Amino acid sequence: MGLINGKQKSIAEGILFTDQYQLTMAQLYYRQGIHEQDALFDHFFRSYPNYGEHQAGYAINAGLEWLLDWIQDVRFHEEELSLLRAMKGRDGKQIFADDFLDWLKENGHFGGLTIHAIPEGRVIHPNVPITTIQGPLAQAQLLETYLLNALNYQTLIATKAARIHQAGRGGLLLEFGARRAQGSAALAGARAALIGGADFTSNAGISHVLGYPPKGTHAHSMVQVFMAMGGSEIDAFRAYADVYPDDCLLLVDTLDTLNSGIPNAIIVFEELRKKGHEPIGIRLDSGDLAHLSVLGSKMLDDAGFPDASIVLSNNLDELVLLQIITQIQEEAPAYGVDADHVINRLTYGVGTRLITSDGDAALDGVYKLVAVCQNDEWRPAMKISESPEKVLNPGHKRAYRIYDERGRATVDLIALADENVRESETLTLHHPSRASMYRQIQTDGISTIEGLHVKVVDSGEIIYESPSIEEMRETRQRDIGQLDPGVRRIVNPHIYHVSLSQKLWDLKQDILKKMRSRG
Amino acid sequence: MGLINGKQKSIAEGILFTDQYQLTMAQLYYRQGIHEQDALFDHFFRSYPNYGEHQAGYAINAGLEWLLDWIQDVRFHEEELSLLRAMKGRDGKQIFADDFLDWLKENGHFGGLTIHAIPEGRVIHPNVPITTIQGPLAQAQLLETYLLNALNYQTLIATKAARIHQAGRGGLLLEFGARRAQGSAALAGARAALIGGADFTSNAGISHVLGYPPKGTHAHSMVQVFMAMGGSEIDAFRAYADVYPDDCLLLVDTLDTLNSGIPNAIIVFEELRKKGHEPIGIRLDSGDLAHLSVLGSKMLDDAGFPDASIVLSNNLDELVLLQIITQIQEEAPAYGVDADHVINRLTYGVGTRLITSDGDAALDGVYKLVAVCQNDEWRPAMKISESPEKVLNPGHKRAYRIYDERGRATVDLIALADENVRESETLTLHHPSRASMYRQIQTDGISTIEGLHVKVVDSGEIIYESPSIEEMRETRQRDIGQLDPGVRRIVNPHIYHVSLSQKLWDLKQDILKKMRSRG
Repeated sequence: MGLINGKQKSIAEGILFTDQYQLTMAQLYYRQGIHEQDALFDHFFRSYPNYGEHQAGYAINAGLEWLLDWIQDVRFHEEELSLLRAMKGRDGKQIFADDFLDWLKENGHFGGLTIHAIPEGRVIHPNVPITTIQGPLAQAQLLETYLLNALNYQTLIATKAARIHQAGRGGLLLEFGARRAQGSAALAGARAALIGGADFTSNAGISHVLGYPPKGTHAHSMVQVFMAMGGSEIDAFRAYADVYPDDCLLLVDTLDTLNSGIPNAIIVFEELRKKGHEPIGIRLDSGDLAHLSVLGSKMLDDAGFPDASIVLSNNLDELVLLQIITQIQEEAPAYGVDADHVINRLTYGVGTRLITSDGDAALDGVYKLVAVCQNDEWRPAMKISESPEKVLNPGHKRAYRIYDERGRATVDLIALADENVRESETLTLHHPSRASMYRQIQTDGISTIEGLHVKVVDSGEIIYESPSIEEMRETRQRDIGQLDPGVRRIVNPHIYHVSLSQKLWDLKQDILKKMRSRG
Repeated sequence: MGLINGKQKSIAEGILFTDQYQLTMAQLYYRQGIHEQDALFDHFFRSYPNYGEHQAGYAINAGLEWLLDWIQDVRFHEEELSLLRAMKGRDGKQIFADDFLDWLKENGHFGGLTIHAIPEGRVIHPNVPITTIQGPLAQAQLLETYLLNALNYQTLIATKAARIHQAGRGGLLLEFGARRAQGSAALAGARAALIGGADFTSNAGISHVLGYPPKGTHAHSMVQVFMAMGGSEIDAFRAYADVYPDDCLLLVDTLDTLNSGIPNAIIVFEELRKKGHEPIGIRLDSGDLAHLSVLGSKMLDDAGFPDASIVLSNNLDELVLLQIITQIQEEAPAYGVDADHVINRLTYGVGTRLITSDGDAALDGVYKLVAVCQNDEWRPAMKISESPEKVLNPGHKRAYRIYDERGRATVDLIALADENVRESETLTLHHPSRASMYRQIQTDGISTIEGLHVKVVDSGEIIYESPSIEEMRETRQRDIGQLDPGVRRIVNPHIYHVSLSQKLWDLKQDILKKMRSRG
């Protein structure tokens, strides 16, 4: 029984892409008659990806557009309902009763939800609500699993891509991870990589779907084929140049990079030039990439190809790129080569470590109930936790980014939705969990107070047109550019401030006190 | 432009789920007239997953069935062809010429391939060909990316699940990772987890598709809802018990596990019992899980519920389970509790760290050309590498598992396909890359020489009926049971031997010599 075909696939990817407990809870709410009461859930993450030796200082939001597509599309069809109907409890009776299944058939979708969200491509920070979901309790509960699945992964990969792009100092970044991705995550991962910082991906299908041309030339196997049949590396290179005279990029490390690959590539490049074509360059996939870049660059220069690119691949990530660039700067002068010239001709093909977010393969995004409406009155909801950082921020909230006089983002402020944070002359910024940590800032030192949320779904109707990937990329570049350089540092970044308003802080303390006295 | 809808999705998941260079190489082979020459590729992995502080000593094969479904299904339809036709090179001309596109339309599928594979659920080891693909060069080349994508991830997760299952000493293992999985990898991941050691998954849709009932009860949010509306934890528990009297499992850590959650659960369990129902148990999702298990177990026993389960969740993996069980063994006696009784009532809900293979999020499976057929003669292909371990094993090969007199698997032997490894009285076992390391064994000390490969596709026709998940699980249990306990140890396992036959070793040395002399 395979998944890929037809109905089974649509069931696994449809509305039942959820944890079983969302369904058992939905039935309980139905039984209690509270399933259509309005509730409010916040989606946010608690900490930046931590890759072990280094941790991100910012994240890049991604995944919303695909989430909205899914929300619009999925329903409880007869197939899904009959699967639920067939489930038996330990007493041998149906787990899901017929009246609840009838409700699911009519109302088990997301048509009652109103969603606010921070757009894709924006820099985001921990504890700030990224997405807020308001509507009938059972519908909002049912959305949890898929929403987290869709947003956690794309945000994780967009963040990793932004870091790698940054470490590569603007060199072209190609996403090469399809073969090592976690299964079909390759597709969402390629999209997120493009939003976060990759310029292209090698993955053909998803590239076309997203309107980007896929990139790729040849593998070692092509050279092997020629050699196994009695030919040589240069025969393979010539064959490639014949078919792709204006798009010729040769992989030079199948045999011996310096003594065979690059010299052979240069011969073929010279032959191409005689016929009126310019090569693209070479790719290095093994060995000491920094050292080989320096020597390869010199060989290409000496042969009259100073504009040929050098594509690097093989287990790259942000730390490896930092190190490669540093080594080139140290090593180039000894060979009489200008380090910047070498660095500027580099392109990076990044596979496994980008598409899996190597070192931290999951973002800890959560989806938490923060308010319930009872008799037309909203009641803030909280969960007390042993660790103060995990105590929820209750109620309806909005997030604002505050920019200083230089236009630098200095703090993300979480306030109650009915507050006007722009009206007073001073703003109190509270640490999210420590009572003694707060500060006041004068609003005249602020250049902009920017609301971060956009209403994207209004009572089930999608009222938001997602920007193009290109626009998301521009948003990301602008937002990263407005971070303090210390915050966007790859290793050991400064902590960006996320604060609560005085009113939100007071509400939180008030509820905490009441809950504890009830305990 | 979203992916989830219709045609775009089928393009991204279809035959263009491949790296662009497979297409450019295929056209080159077409141009050279060698695209339909037979070639042989091996799929294997080079090293066990390495999670940082610990590394696997075996892996569990998974993913084949879904791969075969995909192979059967995908084609170059007019949509795919028109996307390729529209791609332009730097000269503004079509990258893919019309004659090649015509060939793709007719022959750009996997109908010429013959595939041998090791079945799913089997224990597998590095460098042993897991899957071998023989057929027209261009077809075999085009399969690389998707094959690796499908097999790498499922094998990675089945391996992780086997380790966690092993650390849990047979306690029920539930896969809970949908929300933190790498996007839609949640589906393949749930399947692989079941093959490797999970007993159930919380992911509803894929559970139904695979014929397993999904598992799940309720989240903190259910308790929060009742509290926000003026009720209490026990109101929430009672409501749950009312709806699910015979399937009552309560999450007891929303407020205070020992002083509120467990006492309230026990009250509700007593009420249930009076009505003739037995509870399932409690779930602990935070705090010191070992300590709380001991105390919770005692409280349940004292209240007359010695059979109630204790489900643990919250960032579990194999090391955490080892540690929890050790701590229970140390701590239980101090409370007058039998440690084994506590351990035997535990169930493990494992999320993020299973579904993402935390610590090593990608398997390094590769797909390498090992022979090409020219004028009806097979020519072994190799790639020399700087590291001797990465030099390929050339030609047609078969793998055998050799069991000693006790029925223990002692070595996986890779031999040439035309060797009869069963015929001689002694077998020479060569280390794959070190000339001085080999040993001879007497075949009379061997209980079984088991061929590992099965022919699954014959010239494009799938001739293999995949076993059920249940059968794969049995295979996995049997294979792990036949490993030396040192090999299946969680931390610092013994290295299982993988060896080459004398003939394969000789062929490899012979080709290496020839290639180096040509260099």
